[in-house]
Amino acid sequence: MKTWRVLLLGFGTVGQGVAERLRDGATELAAGGLDARIVGVIDPALGSIASAEGLDPGQLLDLANRSGSLRDYPGATLAGSGADAIEAIDADVVFEMTPTNLVDGGPGLQHVRTALGLGRHVATTNKGPVALAWSELAELARANDVQLRCEGTVMSGTPLLNVCDGGLAGAGVYGVRGILNGTCNFVLSRMEAGVDYDEALAEAQELGYAETDPSGDVEGWDAAAKVAILGNLVLGGALTLSDVSREGIVGIGKGDVRSAARQGTRLRLVGSVRAVDGTVVEPKVGVEELSLDDPLAAVCGPANLLTFETEALGPVSIAGPGAGRAATGHALIADLLTIHRQVGS
Amino acid sequence: MKTWRVLLLGFGTVGQGVAERLRDGATELAAGGLDARIVGVIDPALGSIASAEGLDPGQLLDLANRSGSLRDYPGATLAGSGADAIEAIDADVVFEMTPTNLVDGGPGLQHVRTALGLGRHVATTNKGPVALAWSELAELARANDVQLRCEGTVMSGTPLLNVCDGGLAGAGVYGVRGILNGTCNFVLSRMEAGVDYDEALAEAQELGYAETDPSGDVEGWDAAAKVAILGNLVLGGALTLSDVSREGIVGIGKGDVRSAARQGTRLRLVGSVRAVDGTVVEPKVGVEELSLDDPLAAVCGPANLLTFETEALGPVSIAGPGAGRAATGHALIADLLTIHRQVGS
Repeated sequence: MKTWRVLLLGFGTVGQGVAERLRDGATELAAGGLDARIVGVIDPALGSIASAEGLDPGQLLDLANRSGSLRDYPGATLAGSGADAIEAIDADVVFEMTPTNLVDGGPGLQHVRTALGLGRHVATTNKGPVALAWSELAELARANDVQLRCEGTVMSGTPLLNVCDGGLAGAGVYGVRGILNGTCNFVLSRMEAGVDYDEALAEAQELGYAETDPSGDVEGWDAAAKVAILGNLVLGGALTLSDVSREGIVGIGKGDVRSAARQGTRLRLVGSVRAVDGTVVEPKVGVEELSLDDPLAAVCGPANLLTFETEALGPVSIAGPGAGRAATGHALIADLLTIHRQVGS
Repeated sequence: MKTWRVLLLGFGTVGQGVAERLRDGATELAAGGLDARIVGVIDPALGSIASAEGLDPGQLLDLANRSGSLRDYPGATLAGSGADAIEAIDADVVFEMTPTNLVDGGPGLQHVRTALGLGRHVATTNKGPVALAWSELAELARANDVQLRCEGTVMSGTPLLNVCDGGLAGAGVYGVRGILNGTCNFVLSRMEAGVDYDEALAEAQELGYAETDPSGDVEGWDAAAKVAILGNLVLGGALTLSDVSREGIVGIGKGDVRSAARQGTRLRLVGSVRAVDGTVVEPKVGVEELSLDDPLAAVCGPANLLTFETEALGPVSIAGPGAGRAATGHALIADLLTIHRQVGS
């Protein structure tokens, strides 16, 4: 059994989700032939440590939650940050889990570039690098004979991108269409129940679905990044975020929602992209008025659903969580398992 | 690129679906590193032929549809049937696509036994062998170091079993629950629209959803076989069909459907099975009264949907076709791709 040496970039919600999955699912992973060892954690708030012998996920979680610092981990060496640390810590795969920056990719983009350039496989939950610089990064991965995977960028760990490499391979996927932003769907669902836009958005923030600055969600940026990612990863495109036609839910009022209901329809923020003769066309996010028998119309609250249009199977829909600690942590484990299978043990 | 020599057992709807996928998706499959060559076709009606150089899928389809016989395929040798033919034709993988027999497994069970015993990988759409003799066959596959895969036995080619090996691996799946029989769901849906049971069943037969003898569907046998398969393949059980508690839709009247509707619920034939502490428990099929916000209640007509209960992701639902020529044909291609990935090229 090959031991995969994993470097964690970020030990917030997602990084801790990974540690929990490794702690709780170790037996199941070992049964699948996978042995993963955390050889380093780099976090701006909790500190950065490394150990070639491996860091115990349970102990990392304890330290993070009890002392708010990883620096006291017995026997670990202190590590630096950024590119230097990625270079210094000898890992097979880097989990890039820093926050998404959709303007210029932020530190995450540099992390991914550095890691791929060093010949490390990368799994990321960060939408920035994949939505903004996919072509460059995919080429860099090819040139260094490593994989760049990003299951966690769309619907957290719900199996989508790994299904396209797996059970849907050969089915002729030619389009995707989905409810890709839980905050917007929650707000639209609440407005259907008679709540005002502002009130619904405040509820979403209270429940932790929306950020303090919700513009990334309600202006459609988050869903547009996911459309770019799906167009690239599922349909073989070379999109960047600016290629995606984008409309959010800002400006939608209770009147619009009520008028849709009167006509037996529902408003949903839908992201979609298609391929025609091998060319990726019409990447877009917008509010659509859906008939009630459309599976996307049935998605209520913060749920997410993606439909693949396929030649062999017709539409295949997958519904699952769009966020969450364990769910997003699973995404990285799933990506590592795919790398393990594809690269060989 | 490894060439996989494939023997087709059966060249009816499913076998022809495979040939169509190989003909139409050859480029896509080759891009995934897969080269499949049909080295034999065994069919009781169309005749049995073999060719080590490979049989062209398009030409096989033409012959089957134009002359009703494969025997005129230029350059092919005539082959026998059953175990002798499986032994005589040198193949890497056998696609077992004969009709399901849930009483004793029928010829399909013998085919699978023979093929595994000869060290051939097997992919099957035949529920009989897997629902009746999984433990024996899985052991036989292990002993001969080959794979036995059966994506097409549940929801045709909709990615389910291959997702458990793929994107859901490590997610801690502990239960499955779904609408697994399109005929029953169609009949219940039509009864909601005010149609009588007998009339709805006749419609299902006219539309090709139900067999002339619909007892396998309406008495719950088909769904029960799928529950046994899911319990074995997804949860690691050792179930046979007789372990599944089974109830069909026979005896459900318009009054029952109407009374459910008055209470804001819907009747659905639900199959489910769970694992508790590693033990598979409560495999069952029965009519359940579901609240309208249950995703299974939203499944109407001949559609199918399966929900995986997972530790990491909560519920993940996959909806897709439950039948169809191209869809079931894809199941075997998907299984071959999984074998290709797991066994190596």
